[in-house]
Amino acid sequence: MTNFTKANNVQIAYIGGGSKGWAWGLMSDLAQDREISGTVRLYDINSESAKQNELIGNRLKEREDVIAKWDYKAVDTLSEALDGADFVIISILPGTFDQMDSDVHFPEKYGIYQSVGDTVGPGGMVRAFRTIPLFVEMAEAIKTYSPNAWVINYTNPMSLCTRTLYKVFPEIKAIGCCHEVFGTQKILAAMVEELLGVQNVKRQEIDVNVLGINHFTWIDRASYKGVDLLPLYQEFVEKYHETGFEGSEEGHWMNDHFSSAERVKFDLYKKFGLIAAAGDRHLAEFMPLNWYLANPDRVHSWKFGLTPVAWRKENAKKLVEKSKRLVSGEEQFEINPTGEEGVEMIKALIGLKTFISNVNLPNQGQMSGVPNDVIVETNAVFSHNGVQPIVSGELPPEVNKMVAAHIFTQETTLEAALEKNKEKAFRAFSQDMLVQSLNQEQAKQLFDQMLINTKDYLPGWDL
Amino acid sequence: MTNFTKANNVQIAYIGGGSKGWAWGLMSDLAQDREISGTVRLYDINSESAKQNELIGNRLKEREDVIAKWDYKAVDTLSEALDGADFVIISILPGTFDQMDSDVHFPEKYGIYQSVGDTVGPGGMVRAFRTIPLFVEMAEAIKTYSPNAWVINYTNPMSLCTRTLYKVFPEIKAIGCCHEVFGTQKILAAMVEELLGVQNVKRQEIDVNVLGINHFTWIDRASYKGVDLLPLYQEFVEKYHETGFEGSEEGHWMNDHFSSAERVKFDLYKKFGLIAAAGDRHLAEFMPLNWYLANPDRVHSWKFGLTPVAWRKENAKKLVEKSKRLVSGEEQFEINPTGEEGVEMIKALIGLKTFISNVNLPNQGQMSGVPNDVIVETNAVFSHNGVQPIVSGELPPEVNKMVAAHIFTQETTLEAALEKNKEKAFRAFSQDMLVQSLNQEQAKQLFDQMLINTKDYLPGWDL
Amino acid sequence: MTNFTKANNVQIAYIGGGSKGWAWGLMSDLAQDREISGTVRLYDINSESAKQNELIGNRLKEREDVIAKWDYKAVDTLSEALDGADFVIISILPGTFDQMDSDVHFPEKYGIYQSVGDTVGPGGMVRAFRTIPLFVEMAEAIKTYSPNAWVINYTNPMSLCTRTLYKVFPEIKAIGCCHEVFGTQKILAAMVEELLGVQNVKRQEIDVNVLGINHFTWIDRASYKGVDLLPLYQEFVEKYHETGFEGSEEGHWMNDHFSSAERVKFDLYKKFGLIAAAGDRHLAEFMPLNWYLANPDRVHSWKFGLTPVAWRKENAKKLVEKSKRLVSGEEQFEINPTGEEGVEMIKALIGLKTFISNVNLPNQGQMSGVPNDVIVETNAVFSHNGVQPIVSGELPPEVNKMVAAHIFTQETTLEAALEKNKEKAFRAFSQDMLVQSLNQEQAKQLFDQMLINTKDYLPGWDL
Amino acid sequence: MTNFTKANNVQIAYIGGGSKGWAWGLMSDLAQDREISGTVRLYDINSESAKQNELIGNRLKEREDVIAKWDYKAVDTLSEALDGADFVIISILPGTFDQMDSDVHFPEKYGIYQSVGDTVGPGGMVRAFRTIPLFVEMAEAIKTYSPNAWVINYTNPMSLCTRTLYKVFPEIKAIGCCHEVFGTQKILAAMVEELLGVQNVKRQEIDVNVLGINHFTWIDRASYKGVDLLPLYQEFVEKYHETGFEGSEEGHWMNDHFSSAERVKFDLYKKFGLIAAAGDRHLAEFMPLNWYLANPDRVHSWKFGLTPVAWRKENAKKLVEKSKRLVSGEEQFEINPTGEEGVEMIKALIGLKTFISNVNLPNQGQMSGVPNDVIVETNAVFSHNGVQPIVSGELPPEVNKMVAAHIFTQETTLEAALEKNKEKAFRAFSQDMLVQSLNQEQAKQLFDQMLINTKDYLPGWDL
Ligand SMILES: [Mg+2]
Ligand SMILES: [Mg+2]
Ligand SMILES: [Mg+2]
Ligand SMILES: [Mg+2]
Repeated sequence: MTNFTKANNVQIAYIGGGSKGWAWGLMSDLAQDREISGTVRLYDINSESAKQNELIGNRLKEREDVIAKWDYKAVDTLSEALDGADFVIISILPGTFDQMDSDVHFPEKYGIYQSVGDTVGPGGMVRAFRTIPLFVEMAEAIKTYSPNAWVINYTNPMSLCTRTLYKVFPEIKAIGCCHEVFGTQKILAAMVEELLGVQNVKRQEIDVNVLGINHFTWIDRASYKGVDLLPLYQEFVEKYHETGFEGSEEGHWMNDHFSSAERVKFDLYKKFGLIAAAGDRHLAEFMPLNWYLANPDRVHSWKFGLTPVAWRKENAKKLVEKSKRLVSGEEQFEINPTGEEGVEMIKALIGLKTFISNVNLPNQGQMSGVPNDVIVETNAVFSHNGVQPIVSGELPPEVNKMVAAHIFTQETTLEAALEKNKEKAFRAFSQDMLVQSLNQEQAKQLFDQMLINTKDYLPGWDL
Repeated sequence: MTNFTKANNVQIAYIGGGSKGWAWGLMSDLAQDREISGTVRLYDINSESAKQNELIGNRLKEREDVIAKWDYKAVDTLSEALDGADFVIISILPGTFDQMDSDVHFPEKYGIYQSVGDTVGPGGMVRAFRTIPLFVEMAEAIKTYSPNAWVINYTNPMSLCTRTLYKVFPEIKAIGCCHEVFGTQKILAAMVEELLGVQNVKRQEIDVNVLGINHFTWIDRASYKGVDLLPLYQEFVEKYHETGFEGSEEGHWMNDHFSSAERVKFDLYKKFGLIAAAGDRHLAEFMPLNWYLANPDRVHSWKFGLTPVAWRKENAKKLVEKSKRLVSGEEQFEINPTGEEGVEMIKALIGLKTFISNVNLPNQGQMSGVPNDVIVETNAVFSHNGVQPIVSGELPPEVNKMVAAHIFTQETTLEAALEKNKEKAFRAFSQDMLVQSLNQEQAKQLFDQMLINTKDYLPGWDL
Repeated sequence: MTNFTKANNVQIAYIGGGSKGWAWGLMSDLAQDREISGTVRLYDINSESAKQNELIGNRLKEREDVIAKWDYKAVDTLSEALDGADFVIISILPGTFDQMDSDVHFPEKYGIYQSVGDTVGPGGMVRAFRTIPLFVEMAEAIKTYSPNAWVINYTNPMSLCTRTLYKVFPEIKAIGCCHEVFGTQKILAAMVEELLGVQNVKRQEIDVNVLGINHFTWIDRASYKGVDLLPLYQEFVEKYHETGFEGSEEGHWMNDHFSSAERVKFDLYKKFGLIAAAGDRHLAEFMPLNWYLANPDRVHSWKFGLTPVAWRKENAKKLVEKSKRLVSGEEQFEINPTGEEGVEMIKALIGLKTFISNVNLPNQGQMSGVPNDVIVETNAVFSHNGVQPIVSGELPPEVNKMVAAHIFTQETTLEAALEKNKEKAFRAFSQDMLVQSLNQEQAKQLFDQMLINTKDYLPGWDL
Repeated sequence: MTNFTKANNVQIAYIGGGSKGWAWGLMSDLAQDREISGTVRLYDINSESAKQNELIGNRLKEREDVIAKWDYKAVDTLSEALDGADFVIISILPGTFDQMDSDVHFPEKYGIYQSVGDTVGPGGMVRAFRTIPLFVEMAEAIKTYSPNAWVINYTNPMSLCTRTLYKVFPEIKAIGCCHEVFGTQKILAAMVEELLGVQNVKRQEIDVNVLGINHFTWIDRASYKGVDLLPLYQEFVEKYHETGFEGSEEGHWMNDHFSSAERVKFDLYKKFGLIAAAGDRHLAEFMPLNWYLANPDRVHSWKFGLTPVAWRKENAKKLVEKSKRLVSGEEQFEINPTGEEGVEMIKALIGLKTFISNVNLPNQGQMSGVPNDVIVETNAVFSHNGVQPIVSGELPPEVNKMVAAHIFTQETTLEAALEKNKEKAFRAFSQDMLVQSLNQEQAKQLFDQMLINTKDYLPGWDL
């Protein structure tokens, strides 16, 4: 049968295939799967990295503890990667670490601290200007070389990357995937364990209704085996609002640039009565500056971390070393399930299972209160050749207001990037929630300077 | 935990609880379940029947082969049934068999043959006028006595019954359930067995995207373990279009008033390129009279049956006898899974599982191309305290046209019934697809006479 | 000022500029206007006709009774006509009179009589298949040569011609204009004169709310100087339902292929409670065959005429003769106001006035109950560079049903024509209200033969 | 004829009929009209004021320079005012001047300066909480006593007052009227005079497309006799951005609490490329605090005035004196056209004319990009018994974002007021654009205190 045949010859194009994070994770997940195998074509503008990953990946075939023997193949062009692909995974770093440094840290001169800087905020904005043209190019290539492939994007800013793909090629079968909701499910699982005295609660057992936009999603209904979790969460928030809760993630928030004590999340519950379903580092950036990000002390008191790009650079260096060791065989590749659902999604799309997960898709009716076609994040059913969003209702107006505001700014951002229109770009920039703390002159200065810092990636702009 | 407690004390109100069809089926399904138990309160305007079912149901507790020990309790009033109910099941016969006789057979004098006569056609129309006031009453009672209960309706005309519930009590948590799509899945399963040589394919393994209105639903995407079934269906239709296919149902269509050889379904595929997902007896009534129902010979040549009400009356008599024997203990109740999903739905709503099935709900975005709020049938996700429709897309305009036409006539029918407006009722009646074969004078005569035949159930009308 | 300058140099491209009907009407209306002048470029596939009209038009300049001195210029190519045009008027005959003969009369062999045959019915359908490719070509040319021009279409089938223009070039500024609503206003004016004893009521004094699709529009609110006309119409219908009303138009219906006694209109009021706002000849074609068009006697008894194409051919011959006389100067061109609003619209769009009239436009919110983007006819405000539809509400479901049914069939027709897809074309054809009186075999025969009769205008179809 | 009869016996209920502003204006406008007459019933919670206005109004009848002899009648109850009314005018002061004082000036302690304080900002919010229950009561009374009357509201906060009327009585025929757009048209007229050298341009000659919400409306298309005014406005803004423009209003902004030099308006054009169509005093309150209202100096530099409530109190005192003089006959009532369109609207609704003006109505398709049913301000056509909005399009996302944000906060405000829900009320309050400059603790303090200051008008709240 078609699918069984196909399942032994799955063709995956990996754009950003030189990655030392997501790509290694995929290798690990694929290696352990019992149902599918095939080829992963690695494409990266850093072709050296792609070649290293080809070597690393192909080494796995030789190991006894590896179930599925996948072929890895570094390719030189986008068209080679895409032609004939069943799936396209996009996970790229748009621009350089220096540009990311400007995104995240340059605004600190103006009192704007960003915990991530890749989604909203001045950093997210500028990253979007830089990223959208890359996605225009990818969408056009997919339209030409693999119009029937399923495209799974992991790149941020998620909403705008996915929106760009659909804008350029409306018939594309693309989804945007992010694990932030999973993190919130884990917190709820830990809460169930603690407050209900149950053991080993899995995040998949936490049923949630998700609605919002990526990194700013909300849960208005949650249950564990028929127990309504909203009242329980109320209790949980009362208990941990002040101290924070550190049980669900491994590292302590102070030592971990990605961790937090969930105090922002709890505070948002107190303010709005819903569960904010993303990490605190992301959530804080969607809120007025003076709430959580006014200064490092404020951040510290809310018990989440600012992720310095210096750390990312340092980490990247370590990974380069590690990559060399993996290539040479000096170090063995460690196989570990990532907890990501990419491989499960691929299997569902092939027709091997049906499952429900949250995903970023154009609004076609799944979320009320915001326009059609903009990218929203809700649950969807994954099955053979289909990802169908689930009708998820509407946020209360006070929350919908915040979500819609970011959506409209994204629309302006998209228009500006497609038109390479600096004036419109500033309109978007100056309406960002964090930027709005500045007066207009400061905002303009910051904008001008940040664009100059990333100008290599803004071809055609009149800077 | 709440749900476990609750699962041992589930309160079900059964309106139409004297039924000898659906009620016995429910008893059978409940008896075999391992996860829930509680009480079923049986309410019926025929209180004698309800009492007999109380006795029949309570007998089951004594049997060793019965897993769940449910209590059955006949009650005298709607309020007694509803007060404190977690679930309300509605399965009533609106009016008498004589009235149904008029619905189905009186139009034959005018050359209109109806295979069922409970959904559309002159019979379905008149049945709707009779039924809507009953559902107004039930909706008001539910609003008063059990506003948080989940309401599962099985009564036809399904769309209009469900629409009435929501019109009267917009916050109601009601769904309309019907097994016609299951029947189509069974045909597809038989097709997979035959054409792909697989054995024991279950209907649940046939993945379908469903969209339309009850008894006039369509499938535009179907797969079995990743195999796209549309091309296979094309082949299947070519093979069986002329002869009909009789493999999936037990009885031969000629001897079975509910069976068919699927020729109507195959013909609709040839005409529209989609799989019509209901029994031929229902589908034929949605089409122009001269296609399938022009006369008994035409019907015979399309190999489906007209279900005579005389048969129903005869069958009802037999069931009365059987009921007596079951009450007296002369005959033992036979426990058999019905294949219906009512109990599964209840369990999902309690929080014991998550599953996907087709269901009738107000359109909130799940189906494009038809208005909001009207009742459509699509897949939905059933989970703890939630039934969320799945975004199912849009029918091609040539099919959407037919679906929308029936929807608008239903809207007129609803308005007419709520207003007890005879003139508007005739507008609806005369626009029915089967009635449109008559000239206006004939249509008016037929209408007037049919209303008189059912006038006992039209209080407040100026007839 | 811009507009004053412009008003002396208005550039009009007339596609179908060899016309002896609409083109002469335009000459007449332009000649009498005091505010605008400029050039009309006449383009026609019959270039001889265009040249004759150039001569006829330019003769007017010499006359003393002509106020505005317009230049007329026959051009050889579409691009010459369009380049630099401020306005584009489209009024073409799609195909030949012989093809129109097949459209209108061939179906009579199958018992389908058509009073016009240019909008719906088998004739309207086939005309659409023939016309849509021509409008694709025009839309592309307008996009290239005059993207900012206002396009005024008079060609039928109106809805589909206008829909095609927007489908191909979504930014086009196109409107579709038709005088049928004016005719209904005139009847209402005559009614006011008769029943209220007022004299000289102008059709413009009859305020109406219009909603529907071209030739099948409805009025649900009408007034004359604050007098609600619906109750008056009820009285009027009672009076004239049987005999018909012949007061508002000049010729007696029996002698005039375009006239009627309004009996269809009155009958529709009795059936639906609204004023149908088009000529009876058009309205009848939207209804079931057995209502008004079953046979010539039926038509006769409803007191409207079937317009034979033979008459059109004869008339065309006379016009050719007349054209020669006008060119030679043997006959003088008669200047008469047409009652059409084309020139008023042009003046409003230039900014010289603001006025309200009914017009065909994509649905952007002006009409509820039907999809967005399809062409609907409602009132709109014409002002400087803008035609903004007026929010007109929703038809009652029993009327909306009929309108929506025709809309969805138009959508199928459009898809079929764009895809040159014969199978889809038959789906549309067989769902037409008049065609539905046939059985499927007859419908298919009729369809096949009619396509063959018009095959010269169906390039690329697999016939 | 109905309307002529009616036009001599028009029944107007004036709620807030003791007013010394709008009521006197109405008297003046009615006195000069040649086409309608009838009775104005004055209802006011200050019955003394209503009686004085009765006397003042009835005096007019005796004067020779008064054309229409209207009867004025003070009534004691709402039902007396409404029963049989054709029109209901609502123009009330919700609460006392002291409460208004708290609305406007109390927030100054927190650095929030408000130029009006009746629409948005902390003052507008609290005023809304106070006003909504009054409008609930009025809507219920209208539903009971004059369900067919046209209701014209002048009270602020306009959007929420009108929204409340429709929420309580969805079939109400209510419109909200405001003259701010007229003011903008006057500026454009002055601009045309100045830049094009035309004389005596009337504001009615300035054609505009209006879209937004009351006091925060935008113009994206404007013309004067066919001249596109957007490019002209660009030139105008360049010229006057720095200095301000003081030509269009009579008083100098420094001496006039209601005047401004349009610098805010010009600045918004520079930022967003559209014409903001309300007075600067209103516009500033919709923007971030630090743009225009951070402190009195900032306000001064932007050349608009803060309207102190002390001035209003003082002015009210003067009007009380004036009222006495008018009653006694010591002073003669001065008849002056107000420039308001209330009387024109009444005449149009009676059927005496058709005209277009901007108005506040539930969104039924006239404005894209914001939800249905919320109150938006666009142009509409006024005619016999109908106000039909004109389809006005969509704002660019950067402007729509701001409009939508205020709309969603209004929705939260409405819910809070209807539910008397203090927690939800704070959610709305804290999301106001001006309040967002505060940190959460300050916002809460301000909120608590302001509610206490107005608590007499918050019956049923748990304060
Ligand atoms: Mg993410
Ligand atoms: Mg059924
Ligand atoms: Mg026409
Ligand atoms: Mg105002």
